[in-house]
Amino acid sequence: MTATMTTTPATDALEDRFRRLSALAGAEGVLGWDQRVVMPSGGAEARAEQLATLSVLHHEILTAPAVAEALDRASGEPLEGWRAANLAEMRRRHAHATAVSTDLVDALSRAGSRCEALWREARAKSDFAIVRDALTEQIRLVREEAAAKAAALATSPYEALLDGYEPGGSIARIDGLFAELEAALPPLLDAVLERQARAAPQETPAGPFPVAAQRTLAHRVMKTLGFDFDHGRLDETLHPFCGGVPDDVRITTRYDEGGFVSGIMGVIHETGHALYERGLPASWRHQPVGEARGMVMHESQSLLMEMQACRSPAFLGLLSGWAREAFDSDGAAWDPENLRRVYTRVERSFIRVEADEITYPLHVILRTRLERALLSGDLAVADLPGAWNDGMADLLGVTPPTDTLGCLQDIHWYDGAVGYFPTYTLGAMAAAQLFQAAVAAKPEIPDAIGCGDFAPLLGWLRENIHGRASSLGTEEILRAATGSELSAAPFMAHLKSRYLDT
Amino acid sequence: MTATMTTTPATDALEDRFRRLSALAGAEGVLGWDQRVVMPSGGAEARAEQLATLSVLHHEILTAPAVAEALDRASGEPLEGWRAANLAEMRRRHAHATAVSTDLVDALSRAGSRCEALWREARAKSDFAIVRDALTEQIRLVREEAAAKAAALATSPYEALLDGYEPGGSIARIDGLFAELEAALPPLLDAVLERQARAAPQETPAGPFPVAAQRTLAHRVMKTLGFDFDHGRLDETLHPFCGGVPDDVRITTRYDEGGFVSGIMGVIHETGHALYERGLPASWRHQPVGEARGMVMHESQSLLMEMQACRSPAFLGLLSGWAREAFDSDGAAWDPENLRRVYTRVERSFIRVEADEITYPLHVILRTRLERALLSGDLAVADLPGAWNDGMADLLGVTPPTDTLGCLQDIHWYDGAVGYFPTYTLGAMAAAQLFQAAVAAKPEIPDAIGCGDFAPLLGWLRENIHGRASSLGTEEILRAATGSELSAAPFMAHLKSRYLDT
Repeated sequence: MTATMTTTPATDALEDRFRRLSALAGAEGVLGWDQRVVMPSGGAEARAEQLATLSVLHHEILTAPAVAEALDRASGEPLEGWRAANLAEMRRRHAHATAVSTDLVDALSRAGSRCEALWREARAKSDFAIVRDALTEQIRLVREEAAAKAAALATSPYEALLDGYEPGGSIARIDGLFAELEAALPPLLDAVLERQARAAPQETPAGPFPVAAQRTLAHRVMKTLGFDFDHGRLDETLHPFCGGVPDDVRITTRYDEGGFVSGIMGVIHETGHALYERGLPASWRHQPVGEARGMVMHESQSLLMEMQACRSPAFLGLLSGWAREAFDSDGAAWDPENLRRVYTRVERSFIRVEADEITYPLHVILRTRLERALLSGDLAVADLPGAWNDGMADLLGVTPPTDTLGCLQDIHWYDGAVGYFPTYTLGAMAAAQLFQAAVAAKPEIPDAIGCGDFAPLLGWLRENIHGRASSLGTEEILRAATGSELSAAPFMAHLKSRYLDT
Repeated sequence: MTATMTTTPATDALEDRFRRLSALAGAEGVLGWDQRVVMPSGGAEARAEQLATLSVLHHEILTAPAVAEALDRASGEPLEGWRAANLAEMRRRHAHATAVSTDLVDALSRAGSRCEALWREARAKSDFAIVRDALTEQIRLVREEAAAKAAALATSPYEALLDGYEPGGSIARIDGLFAELEAALPPLLDAVLERQARAAPQETPAGPFPVAAQRTLAHRVMKTLGFDFDHGRLDETLHPFCGGVPDDVRITTRYDEGGFVSGIMGVIHETGHALYERGLPASWRHQPVGEARGMVMHESQSLLMEMQACRSPAFLGLLSGWAREAFDSDGAAWDPENLRRVYTRVERSFIRVEADEITYPLHVILRTRLERALLSGDLAVADLPGAWNDGMADLLGVTPPTDTLGCLQDIHWYDGAVGYFPTYTLGAMAAAQLFQAAVAAKPEIPDAIGCGDFAPLLGWLRENIHGRASSLGTEEILRAATGSELSAAPFMAHLKSRYLDT
């Protein structure tokens, strides 16, 4: 088609521009990966300058007057299906971007780089004072961002930030779903802990677990789940994450020679994220509609793999044999039944990323509460450690002895991410709902998982989730895949079945 | 100073813009490092898109009409010293950039990424045909670039490309200096080979050399030379290079468990590059005048460390003890006198990066001749393997049995770098001249090196070379540091002294 023949010149121009923005975002992703995984400490300032420059360029390209004009003209063009959805996504991003000034984007990027570096130090030394001022400045800037976006998007400030991670996310929905959990989880937790106290004690497999053997096992598990090492990597960081781009997905883990149990599940979790990225439709690779739907759907994919598929007795049977091979050990701790006890162990503990399925939502409810208070100004940054510890006592019945085990444990706020936390638990609910639907559609899935064959499950996910990318909203994708909107019921049913009925 | 008080508004604006370009170049550097060091093969296409996008943005920012206007206005502003030199550097870069279209920049970036990927495959399989068409396209684009820049800079096409690596570089100077070498080296080579045949044979230290031990030793050597690991890294690649930015300098090496001799010298070589980057003046960090002067000066710094400082008997005495420790071996091969023989072994061989000091310039003379012929069109890409082999027979008296040992050995042309090769040998001459001057100024340098104390040498380099950055031209820096312009005499004197007189 020659340029003069197109009936959608404005949309064509927008698609070109967003292709460029996608490449720029990809470059930012690689720089961010490098910053966390390999960059020496002395490179922090130069990297902050690079990231801020790319952020500002990204913002300038997205907010150029030509974009608003093209979006106007595109309204009259004949678009259908994915192209129309793509245009809607462009509008959403444009609205977010034009709400904030280039100066604010620049300041947020620099404050994030600086605060994250200080957070690393504060966490290592368990000294909140090291990062307090930087976090205060960071939150001040985030409040400014939230206020500007709230005005532009006609939502509350918190929802304006939430929308950046979970498009269309609503406080009312979260409040309703979280209230259900807050009512149901504490009695369930009591019942499970009581039952656990009466059951045979689990025996934690004893190390040391050499890093090389853990790495080999991690690669084996990742390949089994469907991870393609020609299009991705596994590396090491303090805080595991999934980064990169769909054709080069970078996940990370932490190896602890003294422990193995949580590390391998962390790898499976990040592999779930990676499979989503890798399964996005290649034909829409560099357009907004071709990207992952949002963080709820993303977390549903990691938790579906970690909690639904890989903590199942079927998979733990497989893992049992592989772990014995990897660590050259045949102790009773590796028995599948013992592994099941290890991996369903429930505990009132301090660290979110190591928490079990039942207490995890309580960690998230605390963080959601605190970040809303930080954003509204009801909670001052200086009072965060105390408020954190009070909340832990209230919701989980334990009080962290140090800030490293308390408000310094998560990178999010220090990196400028406010409004992200609720997506973890919404994702956990979606994971239960999706796995239930997948097994209903393909009853062979559980047995196949037990044989190390993830193809039936991955096939269903590719078709129902990954391949749909952002062509529909989160709730629409869920309805199309499961027949109903997001609900706490499958999640609670899953917990009761796994923790009380087996 | 408030904005209204400045007497140099146009220069101020230019400095802001070049600060942004510097950050963008830094980002490109990290992406390039990642591409060579850690990126999985399947990420190639997405990375090419990212790099092309950054190249095009860089080019757009540098060629915006506002730059030409500001450069005009800046002519009338009161600038002195480094600021004036900075403005001159901006003009040079602007002239290079405006000479080529954004489309050509985009095409060059994409062709380079594609051709480099195919080169890796062709080299691994020793099959030039795999990369032939991609290289043909690459050279076609480079010729287009050279023609456009030649018209803009009023030089020959080859000099226009050379100027990108070595500002002010001249074919007449190169022809003169290379003619001296071409006359003097063959008889010297004959004499040295004859003497070597009569001398005691060297005994190459026998492996295996575990990678971990090599890495430990490499770190020890790098720290001794002055490398700061808070501001840099050492990693592994097929083709060692120095990348990153001054505050985060990334060098790479190849570990061969079967051999150790050339690897450690490669590390020393790249450390020389890294020390130059790291020693650039912090106060001019993000401006053109604060960058390294050019590739001749850069190569002089790597070769000064590798050839002048670290192949000296004094340093080899030190290395002897360290290698014995690292590899837990006390064989006679590690004797300093034997190491001296190993590290001054001369041979008519195929691979440039492993060549000795005497034959190396002949490799460069061949490549310079061939790339000039490729650029002029006198040599077709399809005829390159044959021309390469004929040239090797003519200049070095040996014929490569495969293209991997021939025209596929170097990354440069496949990555779009034409006009770069002569800087290696000009750098070797500059290294000899600078080391002679450094020792004349600080006679304690050789003894200090023997004690593992590089501070006197590094201090002299910081003051005379690194700290001057691009505030002067290459020849001016050489004159200020050594009292004379670039000459082949110190290099030839060095070779005669090391290879015939000891």
